[in-house]
Amino acid sequence: MHYPNGKKRMTTNQSKNTLNNPTNFGKRGMTLENDINETNHYYLEWNIAVVHKKPTPVQIVQVDYPKRSAAVIREAYFKQASTTDYNGLYKGRYIDFEAKETRSRTSFPLANIHQHQVDHMKSVVEHNGICFLIIRFENQDESFLLPAEQFFPYWDRQFQGGRKSIPINDIKEHGFKIPFSLQAKVDYLKVIEQVYL
Amino acid sequence: MHYPNGKKRMTTNQSKNTLNNPTNFGKRGMTLENDINETNHYYLEWNIAVVHKKPTPVQIVQVDYPKRSAAVIREAYFKQASTTDYNGLYKGRYIDFEAKETRSRTSFPLANIHQHQVDHMKSVVEHNGICFLIIRFENQDESFLLPAEQFFPYWDRQFQGGRKSIPINDIKEHGFKIPFSLQAKVDYLKVIEQVYL
Repeated sequence: MHYPNGKKRMTTNQSKNTLNNPTNFGKRGMTLENDINETNHYYLEWNIAVVHKKPTPVQIVQVDYPKRSAAVIREAYFKQASTTDYNGLYKGRYIDFEAKETRSRTSFPLANIHQHQVDHMKSVVEHNGICFLIIRFENQDESFLLPAEQFFPYWDRQFQGGRKSIPINDIKEHGFKIPFSLQAKVDYLKVIEQVYL
Repeated sequence: MHYPNGKKRMTTNQSKNTLNNPTNFGKRGMTLENDINETNHYYLEWNIAVVHKKPTPVQIVQVDYPKRSAAVIREAYFKQASTTDYNGLYKGRYIDFEAKETRSRTSFPLANIHQHQVDHMKSVVEHNGICFLIIRFENQDESFLLPAEQFFPYWDRQFQGGRKSIPINDIKEHGFKIPFSLQAKVDYLKVIEQVYL
């Protein structure tokens, strides 16, 4: 883990929006992400499952190799993910999911998901993997597991004049509330166990 | 995909070793990586399997948000991968592997692999995933699939005074030569099919 040496560099193209705190980076959606990472860590520590978040995809353009210190990436850009964020292994089964939170109290906006992620999810289902979304409604502090098979019709319908979000009641009907525990804050394997195995 | 706007920026801390070509980045091992990526693309296109390379893990420290253009990462560092580089799904089975090439003609140096990658591979095997190494001997232009279960004894023995590399003859004995085809240059699923399924 390499952190900056504490010196503030002055650059002419630095804008007001510069973030200088690594842990604070990309704050939106970090709560759910942190909870899932902790849960996955717990699963791994207790030898329950092997699930990891994939690194953020980045297009690296320029790298400096200073003498006597670590390589520094000086220019890079965020790339859109071509798959979901999480995958892994549970009892010999491949599992794959995307996690999103919303501030809406009434529905989950489909704009949170990208077409190529859905393409990926459809491939996973076709090849007999376990695939789902974890959707958290921040205000209610409730998280749901929505199986990909239940999600696809909502996704596809939006292109035939359907609504661009999934009502929370539909998520409750077709999905499963994910239990919370102190050790596994988003204990999604409990649902997997019931629904898929 | 965001590319630089073509202007050469001048920075004082730019060293002689600066790479400015995104496709050329991290050249070592790119041939095997490219061949595997192409193979995975072929598997995906033909609906044979869903396997992806994970993005390079990067610790992002500073991001600029210029007006009217994409966010630019201005300071970031390479992190060591905590898992293997590739995983995915084939006929409902979880598959997971690391790919390495060596210029040695006689053996594969264990220094190419990190302890936490081995820890990860052991977890995968324990949870009934399909786990292996792809090892290419560059000079002979031969690639082998070595099942993780065959690899572990060599890894563990190095800490009990054993050698720090695996002789090519042992790889030939315990592993499987991966066939080449024009469409699937590293057609590892052919081996998986024979060995695991």
